[in-house]
Amino acid sequence: MAQRPIVTLTTDFGLNDHFVGTVKGAILSIAPEVEIVDICHSVQAFDILDGALALAQAYSYFPTRTVHLVVVDPGVGSARRPILASSDKYNFVAPDNGVLSLIYAREERLNVRHVTSDHYFLQPLSNTFHGRDVFAPVAAYLAKGVDQEKFGPEITDFVRFNAPKPKAVDAKTLRGIVLKVDRFGNLITNITPQDAPALLQTPAPGFKIVVGKREVTALQSNYADGAPNELFAILGSMGYLEIAANRTAAAQLASAGKGTEVSLVLEGAAAAGNGQ
Amino acid sequence: MAQRPIVTLTTDFGLNDHFVGTVKGAILSIAPEVEIVDICHSVQAFDILDGALALAQAYSYFPTRTVHLVVVDPGVGSARRPILASSDKYNFVAPDNGVLSLIYAREERLNVRHVTSDHYFLQPLSNTFHGRDVFAPVAAYLAKGVDQEKFGPEITDFVRFNAPKPKAVDAKTLRGIVLKVDRFGNLITNITPQDAPALLQTPAPGFKIVVGKREVTALQSNYADGAPNELFAILGSMGYLEIAANRTAAAQLASAGKGTEVSLVLEGAAAAGNGQ
Amino acid sequence: MAQRPIVTLTTDFGLNDHFVGTVKGAILSIAPEVEIVDICHSVQAFDILDGALALAQAYSYFPTRTVHLVVVDPGVGSARRPILASSDKYNFVAPDNGVLSLIYAREERLNVRHVTSDHYFLQPLSNTFHGRDVFAPVAAYLAKGVDQEKFGPEITDFVRFNAPKPKAVDAKTLRGIVLKVDRFGNLITNITPQDAPALLQTPAPGFKIVVGKREVTALQSNYADGAPNELFAILGSMGYLEIAANRTAAAQLASAGKGTEVSLVLEGAAAAGNGQ
Repeated sequence: MAQRPIVTLTTDFGLNDHFVGTVKGAILSIAPEVEIVDICHSVQAFDILDGALALAQAYSYFPTRTVHLVVVDPGVGSARRPILASSDKYNFVAPDNGVLSLIYAREERLNVRHVTSDHYFLQPLSNTFHGRDVFAPVAAYLAKGVDQEKFGPEITDFVRFNAPKPKAVDAKTLRGIVLKVDRFGNLITNITPQDAPALLQTPAPGFKIVVGKREVTALQSNYADGAPNELFAILGSMGYLEIAANRTAAAQLASAGKGTEVSLVLEGAAAAGNGQ
Repeated sequence: MAQRPIVTLTTDFGLNDHFVGTVKGAILSIAPEVEIVDICHSVQAFDILDGALALAQAYSYFPTRTVHLVVVDPGVGSARRPILASSDKYNFVAPDNGVLSLIYAREERLNVRHVTSDHYFLQPLSNTFHGRDVFAPVAAYLAKGVDQEKFGPEITDFVRFNAPKPKAVDAKTLRGIVLKVDRFGNLITNITPQDAPALLQTPAPGFKIVVGKREVTALQSNYADGAPNELFAILGSMGYLEIAANRTAAAQLASAGKGTEVSLVLEGAAAAGNGQ
Repeated sequence: MAQRPIVTLTTDFGLNDHFVGTVKGAILSIAPEVEIVDICHSVQAFDILDGALALAQAYSYFPTRTVHLVVVDPGVGSARRPILASSDKYNFVAPDNGVLSLIYAREERLNVRHVTSDHYFLQPLSNTFHGRDVFAPVAAYLAKGVDQEKFGPEITDFVRFNAPKPKAVDAKTLRGIVLKVDRFGNLITNITPQDAPALLQTPAPGFKIVVGKREVTALQSNYADGAPNELFAILGSMGYLEIAANRTAAAQLASAGKGTEVSLVLEGAAAAGNGQ
């Protein structure tokens, strides 16, 4: 069986409107052979970092040659550019607002193009729904095999930002934030094992994490090891330190949420790693 | 690669239950080659107009020969008829309760049939889940290529309603309503550019829109042109006048929602267009 | 057109994160020809019975040879086993925590294996996301046609529980509970027609159902037969007695929800059937 081209969707369109369905129709009208896969449509509205995080977590699990379409686009219809970024493995189609920043940081030999070939766009072109009129058709033609060169000139001044990193407050203390709260109420911080390598030692050193109204001093290797209503730290599947609880929402236990400050204080050894 | 037949789904089933999955299983058991695409499952429960709007926004972006399955069906199991409506381009399968009204208004040469051939239905036939037992199998057999004539006799007395239209209150004033609030908090009114053609002139005339607790006097061509917390009007991608705000929910700023009255007062020129 | 292998997904991952998309990527990377179908991702977090109910309602509507992947897995990363259960018609991949209990009760000639062949797993193997690293690849290899014997040894001590059954309080009274509230606010009880066969007689006997703050004495055969704001009983498509209302949420009318006690009192004839 021939492999179908895959287009994934990551948007802040939600699932309460016709937006996602319309984008899929626009793709299939051009490339009916495409397999469309939803990564997430519940990116927080207008939240470019949240979209970048969702994409970064999922994209590399897809087959080579997948086209990843990302529409978190508060600047739709303004001068912001539609872009196409291509690595050896994947193509990404998105507005040039930084939503691909984590991709730029991870994928090597990426080239980025300003999509200017408007004969690929749907007509009439709206000012308010480029997901349908610009990004969907570009993704569809890419999936059909149109060469990336055809879409527009290479650019180097694309918009990128650095994801918020934890800061070393002193030799023992890192200060980070909660990047997001997942479905289970786990608090996903922006602290990585590389920021605090001591946590990976055996035995792990004593530590204290202050988050919201609570202090956390336990480190578990899986959720089920936590006692009822106990908050603990865990190195989660997203590559970040999480504050979690067993079968309970840590966010509620700690009265914490997206953006809440998190302090990690390591005992003994220097804590700060390369936490720049 | 051969083109797969496409069946789209528009329902008020929500995504919290097994309903949508079961409907997909029922389709694939009959027609495993079908590509199923969700348009929207968050149509407001029992709200036929809301379902009609979702379908109307999306259906025409799909490839020719797509089967559009619509299940917003508060009368399930009662005497209301299952119907099949076919145009040159699409097939629609739905309960005969008016949910296809906007399709009747837009598609030419449409014929509508009462689906009476119950050997296509799943057995035993429930009284409460015709999405699974009636509509899914009919859509699947259509997608497989069964002739529409086989499903039942043509009818002309199918149920249809007119979507609510704005009314001319006087020579300068149109009164409409908010049809829906989209994911971003934009207020989608039932006023179209045809209802107030003066708004399309360059320069646009002075105007005032009263909605909820606020007055709106600016017209923007894209969302990003709005100042922070400013409410403005915009001709949106759905073909209606919207009240919007830049990166903010207009619904909240205006304390308005679905069903809220909207008055458009145009200065100078006669406002009312053909707003019947 | 060759039939694509189908993998269904039933999880408590919700749709707000990247989890579902990542699982789909992991499946497609191994078996790009697979058709992935969502049954439900809104199983209540950590709620094994809720997952078992969603799966039980939908699985049998899918084509033979479908692989049903179920991830409701509060014990992820602990000693709980990943399992594969195979009947003549379907394969099920899940954690061994009882989430397949209703399948064990319904499918004949089922054999269950402990999945121990970890060369099928993604590496590095996380402790917190076996949906991605264990269950998705096992489902993908099964869909590709790898023999079930290859995944690990047969076991008989798999975890199973009985769904909560109604109890006969006396000769006329059955006491059950609300298993779940569906999207429309219908209260799905755990009472089946087999528990109270008298309800199927014509004419049905007099009866009284006490649920939350209300008494229900009417039995309808479809939702539309109910008077406005009337609560009534109905034998629903899920195979259980439901308390419903016409175009209104019965849960709200009765101030009842998941877990609420339900008493059915039958007049005249013995009520209790075989309600053990």
